[in-house]
Amino acid sequence: MTGPCTPDQPISGALSQFLADSKWEDLPADVGHQAKRAVLNFFATALGGCRDAAIELALRTFADFSGPRMAAIIGRTERADPLTAAFLNAASANVFDFDDTHVPTIIHPTAPVAAALFALAARCRITGRMFLHAFVLGVETECRIGNSVSPTHYRRGWHITATCGVFGAAAAAGKILGLDQRRMLWALGNASAQSAGLVETLGSMAKSIGVGNSARNGLISALLAENGFVGPDRPIEGPRGFTKVMSEQRDLSRISEGLGASWELLCNTYKPYPCGVVLNPVIEACLNLHREHDLSSTGIRRIVVTGHPLLRERADRPCVTTGREAQVSAQHSVAIVLLQGAAGVLQYTDAAVHDPAVKELRAKVLVEDDAAFAVGAARVNIETTNGVVLTAQISEARGSLTRPMTDSELERKLASLVEYGCPGFRTDPLIDAIWSMDRCGDVRGIIDMTSVDVGRFASKSG
Amino acid sequence: MTGPCTPDQPISGALSQFLADSKWEDLPADVGHQAKRAVLNFFATALGGCRDAAIELALRTFADFSGPRMAAIIGRTERADPLTAAFLNAASANVFDFDDTHVPTIIHPTAPVAAALFALAARCRITGRMFLHAFVLGVETECRIGNSVSPTHYRRGWHITATCGVFGAAAAAGKILGLDQRRMLWALGNASAQSAGLVETLGSMAKSIGVGNSARNGLISALLAENGFVGPDRPIEGPRGFTKVMSEQRDLSRISEGLGASWELLCNTYKPYPCGVVLNPVIEACLNLHREHDLSSTGIRRIVVTGHPLLRERADRPCVTTGREAQVSAQHSVAIVLLQGAAGVLQYTDAAVHDPAVKELRAKVLVEDDAAFAVGAARVNIETTNGVVLTAQISEARGSLTRPMTDSELERKLASLVEYGCPGFRTDPLIDAIWSMDRCGDVRGIIDMTSVDVGRFASKSG
Repeated sequence: MTGPCTPDQPISGALSQFLADSKWEDLPADVGHQAKRAVLNFFATALGGCRDAAIELALRTFADFSGPRMAAIIGRTERADPLTAAFLNAASANVFDFDDTHVPTIIHPTAPVAAALFALAARCRITGRMFLHAFVLGVETECRIGNSVSPTHYRRGWHITATCGVFGAAAAAGKILGLDQRRMLWALGNASAQSAGLVETLGSMAKSIGVGNSARNGLISALLAENGFVGPDRPIEGPRGFTKVMSEQRDLSRISEGLGASWELLCNTYKPYPCGVVLNPVIEACLNLHREHDLSSTGIRRIVVTGHPLLRERADRPCVTTGREAQVSAQHSVAIVLLQGAAGVLQYTDAAVHDPAVKELRAKVLVEDDAAFAVGAARVNIETTNGVVLTAQISEARGSLTRPMTDSELERKLASLVEYGCPGFRTDPLIDAIWSMDRCGDVRGIIDMTSVDVGRFASKSG
Repeated sequence: MTGPCTPDQPISGALSQFLADSKWEDLPADVGHQAKRAVLNFFATALGGCRDAAIELALRTFADFSGPRMAAIIGRTERADPLTAAFLNAASANVFDFDDTHVPTIIHPTAPVAAALFALAARCRITGRMFLHAFVLGVETECRIGNSVSPTHYRRGWHITATCGVFGAAAAAGKILGLDQRRMLWALGNASAQSAGLVETLGSMAKSIGVGNSARNGLISALLAENGFVGPDRPIEGPRGFTKVMSEQRDLSRISEGLGASWELLCNTYKPYPCGVVLNPVIEACLNLHREHDLSSTGIRRIVVTGHPLLRERADRPCVTTGREAQVSAQHSVAIVLLQGAAGVLQYTDAAVHDPAVKELRAKVLVEDDAAFAVGAARVNIETTNGVVLTAQISEARGSLTRPMTDSELERKLASLVEYGCPGFRTDPLIDAIWSMDRCGDVRGIIDMTSVDVGRFASKSG
């Protein structure tokens, strides 16, 4: 199982066998800690995102169809059936693109998997260890599948968090349900029928449908499999299976090699800024420029941003009309950070986008690529009207694998997002519960802690 | 709007404008009648399929999550919330692949659209005319989108009924909700985030997830849009939109040209046999051979089936282990029809697949292709052990556009499927209601007619 597989071997079968056989004791301690960091960051971004217009509208629309309201919706008083809660919590956690990033694939791995697991916790008791174990396996599944189709999958136009997330959620939920190898395979097969999400939707609310569905549909895939609902034998590698249909080039060995020996969660990073991860070094460069120069009195002719080709591919977006689009716009990020010296959620609202000063500066930003730059590197050159060039260069942005956010930085990120989305919510009990999660008897207590009356808090503080 | 568009024009915008503007009076009478035929066939296949194991298991799994049980599930006593009912009814109607076929694309157009509309009828009053109108527009939408990506879309491995059906369901539901052009565009955009379904799942229960989701997700796409949930501007033609990502070659003019002047529903056909439409001429040839020769006393050396390349591509499946796989197996179809002289749902059960005589004969069937054959044509040569070749050739199978099933044949199909899936259910009131649908004040009465206690009927008749 842990040895290399050739493309001729049944990858879906080997993966589901690994998932069914895996034991908590097999996990290295650092993987367990990374899982807690991921969960902390998940709550941070979901508590921050839970009142975004996309979440409000989705909640309102789905409310009419919700079954028994057993499951908490993070940061809200409303509750929903577990499938609906899985959708909404994954969507909340990802809505600002402020959630975590698996570096090799740019998947946001936690939202689909954690949302599915917490939703399932409303149906059956899940201890902290069971949760962390299933979570690690879910992330492993979605990221390995993502590895196998990268980079052609995203490049073709697939929103990889959604398309691969559904497999992760299915695997994680399947682990909690104790699926044997055959049923785990069906869970992956049922997920393959629901893998969806187009890059074209990024910048619109519809992005959140793909991400929400990945959690909901992964969960139902496992529940269907538990009941005996049969999927295809080779959903991942079959001639019309996921990797064949949804990428230009695949490397199935990326799924099977080192399974159980290396862990994808160790390639996970946390964002300091609420936007596309390719923008991290750009923003940091602009923060430095803002700190070091008095830009308010500087006439700016144009600004040239240079980075890895991915930067231009994903974030060269001069025309933005909404905060959501702005999250994947280098032009907007440069303009607002140079003007305001900050890059939090407030810098990516619709209002920020329509600020006349931001608009004016945005029009002066040019994005260039240079294959010599690493993904985590960027240079920002401000060409002033009097012929001076102000430069800042970042070789490795904060939030990268080599410059990871610390545990306390993650706690502060949670606090600042709570301040934005759920002012007044007490973060300490939640933070404590997450760091001690491996000793938790039922994680339902953790998610239920975040089911809060935001209105009450807001009126208290405002 | 009705004139030709170039690929540079905003196709999604033009299509949504057409959908928002369309009036019942714009529809030719024959299109209205075709819509009724489609609805009749929809109930036939759903009443026949509604107790299939895939439906039973899906119903059991989703039951725990159902919201208010307002909507009927065809052929069952259980009810569910409209989203769940949309899923289950679309899945039932398609589970045997006995539903209708849009010839140019091989889409089964009715299941996603009709299931979404009948589910919506549980929420708001829909007259027969409103239903037929929205239904025609839904079919128009999914089939035109399907046309624009055919044949590379299916060939790549996309289950086109599911992937395009979600757009049809969204358009139809959006029409009932009275969406304006902008919201109709959002409905299509929300659908684009959920377009999914792999050919790899065919032959397993997971196929029904794709088809069920197309109805459910199309419906929620329109409901989200009604509430203001914003989709991308160019979900269909954008650089990372549906046609670009999910096909090898696209022809956007197939979406816009003749919009409102020609109607895709006129290219719709109804299946006489419960299996892949490419098998129709093969089965008819075998029925003729069975009728004309005493095959029980004939030693058979081998059987050679020759047809259009699509036949081999989609149905050359010598090894089958389930009834579901058998529906797309030329080998099984040939063997069982030659042995039993019939091609109904009973010939595509698991038991039929495991019949030793069928297994033995199946192994002797060879599928060849010949580009000179039309899709509706096939030849079956039985080479006997004493050197004789028995031949039957069909140039245009029954159930094709030029040899369509008559209205009474459709009624008989309904009766025979009811006998299989809901024995004892009285078909006449349903048939009358469908033929007079354009005068119906609320189609909820029609779908509710099919909410029946099958157990009671079954125990009565058995």
